[in-house]
Amino acid sequence: MKSVERQIIEAVSRIAQCDEWVNLRLGIGDDTAVYVPSIGEDLLLTTDQVVEGTHFEREIHPAHALGYKTIARAVSDIAAMGGNSLCCLLSLCLPDWTRPDWLRHYLRGLSVAIGRFNIPLVGGDVARGEKFNATLSAVGSVSQTAALTRHNAEPGDRLYVSGLLGGSALGLKILREGGSSRRVAVRRHLYPEPRLALGRFLRNEVSASAAIDLSDGLSSDVIKLALASSVAIEIDVRSIPCYRGCSVDEAIVGGEEYELLFTVPAKVKVPGAFDHVPLTKIGTIKTGSGVKLRTENGLITLQDRGFHHFESQ
Amino acid sequence: MKSVERQIIEAVSRIAQCDEWVNLRLGIGDDTAVYVPSIGEDLLLTTDQVVEGTHFEREIHPAHALGYKTIARAVSDIAAMGGNSLCCLLSLCLPDWTRPDWLRHYLRGLSVAIGRFNIPLVGGDVARGEKFNATLSAVGSVSQTAALTRHNAEPGDRLYVSGLLGGSALGLKILREGGSSRRVAVRRHLYPEPRLALGRFLRNEVSASAAIDLSDGLSSDVIKLALASSVAIEIDVRSIPCYRGCSVDEAIVGGEEYELLFTVPAKVKVPGAFDHVPLTKIGTIKTGSGVKLRTENGLITLQDRGFHHFESQ
Repeated sequence: MKSVERQIIEAVSRIAQCDEWVNLRLGIGDDTAVYVPSIGEDLLLTTDQVVEGTHFEREIHPAHALGYKTIARAVSDIAAMGGNSLCCLLSLCLPDWTRPDWLRHYLRGLSVAIGRFNIPLVGGDVARGEKFNATLSAVGSVSQTAALTRHNAEPGDRLYVSGLLGGSALGLKILREGGSSRRVAVRRHLYPEPRLALGRFLRNEVSASAAIDLSDGLSSDVIKLALASSVAIEIDVRSIPCYRGCSVDEAIVGGEEYELLFTVPAKVKVPGAFDHVPLTKIGTIKTGSGVKLRTENGLITLQDRGFHHFESQ
Repeated sequence: MKSVERQIIEAVSRIAQCDEWVNLRLGIGDDTAVYVPSIGEDLLLTTDQVVEGTHFEREIHPAHALGYKTIARAVSDIAAMGGNSLCCLLSLCLPDWTRPDWLRHYLRGLSVAIGRFNIPLVGGDVARGEKFNATLSAVGSVSQTAALTRHNAEPGDRLYVSGLLGGSALGLKILREGGSSRRVAVRRHLYPEPRLALGRFLRNEVSASAAIDLSDGLSSDVIKLALASSVAIEIDVRSIPCYRGCSVDEAIVGGEEYELLFTVPAKVKVPGAFDHVPLTKIGTIKTGSGVKLRTENGLITLQDRGFHHFESQ
């Protein structure tokens, strides 16, 4: 009789398959995976967790969507660097409430995202614990020295954002109020789309100077971008593209958008959309520090009101 | 005033420093780290977790030792492949009980191991959760096609193990009974030594055919090796090197040794020790499947009695 641990590992191994394994010498089943890097490519390394009670509520978040999001969150980091996804490692901590059915749906969602973003699972770890935790570490690639970082925005550059903001937070609100998971905003919350192709387009075609993905919300992530580049940023509030049904304030604060916030030199022409996703100019980069919002009542300082794990002490 | 999250990230960033950063284009502070692989090297990828209540008990395990072990566990996987450590990513899930003092000690232990095994921390994630979870993903390297895997043991090969077995389990027992954390067996449990140099020696000098690190215990890991190589293994019980004060049974079952179990062709001469760590021949590889113990009463089948997260259902 197989141990439950063995069954879980076998189930995870089955969903690990993907189209492009050319650079993989050894996948799941040894002490480590063995990956053969291509010459001329830099590797992108990132890790992200999905934690019970923090990133999801068991009562309202379907297992399938959590599996999908486990992958999508880390892939979004690769997208923000203008990279390609290569492979990933998964550490699963499973509590007693994890029934086989729940786990099956979770792994199916994981599998859908692995196939969609072409990021084969090459290793992992399974442990028992009191709370569910899925930590995904992802490896991506980008041509040498070409990664799109946060720290190269320069005064005079223009600030753009992809998509419409606030939809994910609205979807979470609808879910919490018992709304259908089929509603478009809810799907946007449950199945965010990492902007992989857009990131590469920004790096290769638009000569973007800096980029960051909006995981904690515009108000939080734009401040990180300004800090990393040692610049000030001025955002025109009226230009922020709001998701249908969201106020500007909700668009500024709402997290888990996984859209890209990026800067481009003033002389560069940015198309109005990429692959049907609108690209909107929302501000300019200045010398100095801090982020200001231009409103009807003049300039006000933007406060970081994004999602934070720990309160100020 | 800095948020607690910011303070934690800054504390982690400070301990991330290490001697050899030559291949790192970008460390902590962007969407991903950027690593430049060396030509002719394969990359080793692994992930491991340290989970509250599963891998440690808050009451008896010092924070400093947990920080150290977070790194050591993953480095041991790289050692088992005969590799060099390159860099790592850390996902921390911190519960409310994590006081600044505890976290400081944890990070200090992490920092000691990072320096000792030369594996700079290049990225991470911090979240709040109800239970502590530290997931470390490590990247190592090995010359092209030279990784020491589990699946190449062949009939006729000899089976060896490094070190003396059972000490870590004994140390845990002493800790649980309130014994001093200065006792040698306890230190062996709290501060295991990944066999990095030994792994490279086995690969480069001894032409070992297969290797695995003993994390779950000999009884569990030798079965994994036999399965992966599609061979049978026969172990001579009298030859198993037991830690002082441990019975053969305790040496067979005890987990968290992080010693290396490896196989070498019969014609290869293996020294009796490497860097003061004994290397002991404990068995032979045969055709067939399963692992048998040669005892005074004849051959008996070895049962997997290592640490398992999930009971059979």
